[in-house]
Amino acid sequence: MKTKLGPQRILFPLPTVLIVTGTMEKANIATIAWISILSSKPPTVGISVGTKGFTGEEILKNKNFTVNIASAEIMTETDFCGITSGKDIDKFEKTGLQKLPSSEISAPIIKQCPINLECKLIESKIIGTTNHFVGEIVETHVDTDKIKDITHWGTIDIDAVNPLVYISGAKEYRTIGKKIGDAYNIGNKLKE
Amino acid sequence: MKTKLGPQRILFPLPTVLIVTGTMEKANIATIAWISILSSKPPTVGISVGTKGFTGEEILKNKNFTVNIASAEIMTETDFCGITSGKDIDKFEKTGLQKLPSSEISAPIIKQCPINLECKLIESKIIGTTNHFVGEIVETHVDTDKIKDITHWGTIDIDAVNPLVYISGAKEYRTIGKKIGDAYNIGNKLKE
Repeated sequence: MKTKLGPQRILFPLPTVLIVTGTMEKANIATIAWISILSSKPPTVGISVGTKGFTGEEILKNKNFTVNIASAEIMTETDFCGITSGKDIDKFEKTGLQKLPSSEISAPIIKQCPINLECKLIESKIIGTTNHFVGEIVETHVDTDKIKDITHWGTIDIDAVNPLVYISGAKEYRTIGKKIGDAYNIGNKLKE
Repeated sequence: MKTKLGPQRILFPLPTVLIVTGTMEKANIATIAWISILSSKPPTVGISVGTKGFTGEEILKNKNFTVNIASAEIMTETDFCGITSGKDIDKFEKTGLQKLPSSEISAPIIKQCPINLECKLIESKIIGTTNHFVGEIVETHVDTDKIKDITHWGTIDIDAVNPLVYISGAKEYRTIGKKIGDAYNIGNKLKE
């Protein structure tokens, strides 16, 4: 049996990422879960942030941002960056997270995040009370000890990355669970 | 130490959803992981599908689609819908997944998915080789036995929903793991 809940923005599970804007001299961090890959050629990512927030202002000014995947190890720092505004405080200073320079853009990456994407803004679109920013991914960084073969990103050790999972509604952080099947493969069982 | 991998579309973890297009008489299912909530007022969701695929054609024709969250229980059916094209086969027939009528739109929902979102197309935008469709969520359905208090979607029992997690690159399906913290709360530790 199904129950209708009316129009609700429900999606499970969500990734948890830290968006860094600004420059090495003055940078800010925002935590978001409304993010998706949009295309592979070119590689692009879409992020949604509030139209009235500091991060949106900074992206429009600098035309770039970095996406830093949060691990379970930095859950507390990640949550802090989601419940505070960069208008008031220096979140790098408060959390102890450290900046590293990007290769292609002004916004730094976060050392403690196992995976970092450098993104150049290619377009933006206001939808309701959020701004949807489309970024072209121009460089990717991964912790060297978390990838088996640096010539293929598919060999990233996901258990070593230990990505933080966000469950909206219940407002929980979780880890990823155990492997239960091979994608692009297990469905072949139903072909006959 | 960090290693540069060049421009790569990396994001962990990803949700796994079944997109249904068409009508109760003739419907199709596509599996995707490139999906994100875009805004809460109005509630909108963005999905990315190939410009050359059947799902994109159907969305442009009917101006609606449903998002059906896959559970670990239907991993095999979900994978099958991701490695086959609706141009050739009836995926409902092949998988045994069942249609239920939507309230507001033509595209049906999937009975076996614990959560279903009815979406009206409000815009689309081609980015590279994919089309990004923005849907306004006009109704939400949840399995009645998987919500504690039907007046608040935040009481959905996420362990009962058991959402399927997709790990790109490694091409793995996983479950969600254990709870490790309260979001919008644990970061308060760093405020002083």
